[in-house]
Amino acid sequence: MRAIVLDRDGVAVRADHPEPVSRDSEVMVRVLCAGVCETDLQLIRGYMGFHGVLGHEFVGVADSGPLAGRRVVGEINCSCHRCPTCLAGRPSHCPHRSVLGILNHDGAFADVIAVPQRNLHAVPDSMPTDIAVFTEPVAAAFQIPSQISIARQDRVVVIGDGRLGNLCAQVLAGLSNHVLVVGKHATKLALLQSLGISTCLLADRPDDRFADIVVDCTGSPTGLPTALNMVRPRGTIVLKTTVAGDQTLAWAPVVIDEVTIVGSRCGPFDRALAALEAGEISVRPLISGRFDLANGLEALEQAARPGMLKVLLDVSQ
Amino acid sequence: MRAIVLDRDGVAVRADHPEPVSRDSEVMVRVLCAGVCETDLQLIRGYMGFHGVLGHEFVGVADSGPLAGRRVVGEINCSCHRCPTCLAGRPSHCPHRSVLGILNHDGAFADVIAVPQRNLHAVPDSMPTDIAVFTEPVAAAFQIPSQISIARQDRVVVIGDGRLGNLCAQVLAGLSNHVLVVGKHATKLALLQSLGISTCLLADRPDDRFADIVVDCTGSPTGLPTALNMVRPRGTIVLKTTVAGDQTLAWAPVVIDEVTIVGSRCGPFDRALAALEAGEISVRPLISGRFDLANGLEALEQAARPGMLKVLLDVSQ
Repeated sequence: MRAIVLDRDGVAVRADHPEPVSRDSEVMVRVLCAGVCETDLQLIRGYMGFHGVLGHEFVGVADSGPLAGRRVVGEINCSCHRCPTCLAGRPSHCPHRSVLGILNHDGAFADVIAVPQRNLHAVPDSMPTDIAVFTEPVAAAFQIPSQISIARQDRVVVIGDGRLGNLCAQVLAGLSNHVLVVGKHATKLALLQSLGISTCLLADRPDDRFADIVVDCTGSPTGLPTALNMVRPRGTIVLKTTVAGDQTLAWAPVVIDEVTIVGSRCGPFDRALAALEAGEISVRPLISGRFDLANGLEALEQAARPGMLKVLLDVSQ
Repeated sequence: MRAIVLDRDGVAVRADHPEPVSRDSEVMVRVLCAGVCETDLQLIRGYMGFHGVLGHEFVGVADSGPLAGRRVVGEINCSCHRCPTCLAGRPSHCPHRSVLGILNHDGAFADVIAVPQRNLHAVPDSMPTDIAVFTEPVAAAFQIPSQISIARQDRVVVIGDGRLGNLCAQVLAGLSNHVLVVGKHATKLALLQSLGISTCLLADRPDDRFADIVVDCTGSPTGLPTALNMVRPRGTIVLKTTVAGDQTLAWAPVVIDEVTIVGSRCGPFDRALAALEAGEISVRPLISGRFDLANGLEALEQAARPGMLKVLLDVSQ
């Protein structure tokens, strides 16, 4: 099959990659469309030391099982569902897990991906594939309100106007009347303004510490220090993106100002699918480019360029 | 009056320091006893750039006001009670605040300290002065359950067997059945064991990530990395002590494991006084030394030595 494969020599499009072999209760899914995520770009730069087929945002058609023949999306954590962590209700943190396209499991930039049956969710028939492909990142945005409570009057700042920052801002704007997105790219901020969300350029941000909640979607070592300069005492900072390597920071203000910092990763697919079906989240304007799988390297290059939002791979029509 | 004063030349005991001048609704308090805290030692090393009379843990006798003639303890944050932060119910984070013996306000290592009337709490007549002098650090320990919920079955680790670690462990052992203190000093750990609290040496700590809650009381840059190695995914780390300067840390695990980090500072005096009166918290065994104010430099030196717990200054009998 065709696949975009990362190995020690770098990333390449292969025409003859072996099809995945089904383990345990995995279902073969023929991929229709996949999205490029910041994590894919970081994996290429060496984050996590992953080797294999990239890609974890996808829509495909299940080959077997109760959803055979239907379009599906898939949660990315493949957990054992038997260990204490899983049985305690935290399967996405299973210490034995593999993660689609990220950790010990081939991903979705390929004709076929193997996915545990229980990870699959049916896509509503009325939902276009290029909307459904946003389920995984929209779910990640909905993880925020599943971790912290957000009130209508809370002043919320999202730092970062990229793919994930945009989706987080849209989710949070459904919960708070005071969402401000701080970013570096006027065109990306304009997209949020068109949805009625307030924005400002990083250089023009308010210099008082007014925010009840700050969400760091920068994927940059500067995100957390900026967040600490914007959050009020006893406020909350949500870290939504990972940064490889060490970060250096003055820690005392976290204690003195009694700030809460919450790491946030994967979220609820059901909620994301419902929000996409209801049109609560606008995703089509985020599509910056579409490529065939054969042109996957161009897709990855484009996704890494400043100003780009979501790049899609149309794997099979 | 006599006072232990920190200025650009270092710390010195003065016999003729001017008595404080009452501002606004401050009450003069004749100090009976004061405790040396890790923060005092850090201030001497240059933390916060404080110059003035040191000391913020004290018992004294109020000179005037509704508590005139009574023994009192005092909350350390002197807030404006008018700004948006104060009116929002967070006076201890008032941006205009001074802090007794820490920030723009002379402290309690002196014959007299000026304290805002509303900061004072009467000491129950039955409570000895050398018990009441622990109110401030015991209140700081009770700040933890005021910020996070702690269940009987939660596995709680306290890192650090010093003054504050001991008090935090005692407070938490009243809430959870599974408190483990990790420290470097066998004699300090033995003190906790005598109270029925489990302990282990840092080198012998469990190497799996089992803790629901980890409280960092180390005052050391190694505290947070150790806490991250002991907390479970979606667990909580409470930072209880400040570390001056920058700290370097790999941040990605906070996001991947969705850890919550909570800074924690001053706490409720009422709760601390009630716990001390009820004998819930054992503080006398923590007293490692007692000095007259005239021998204040020796007191500070002794407090800085390894193995020491609480050093008291008997200011006036």
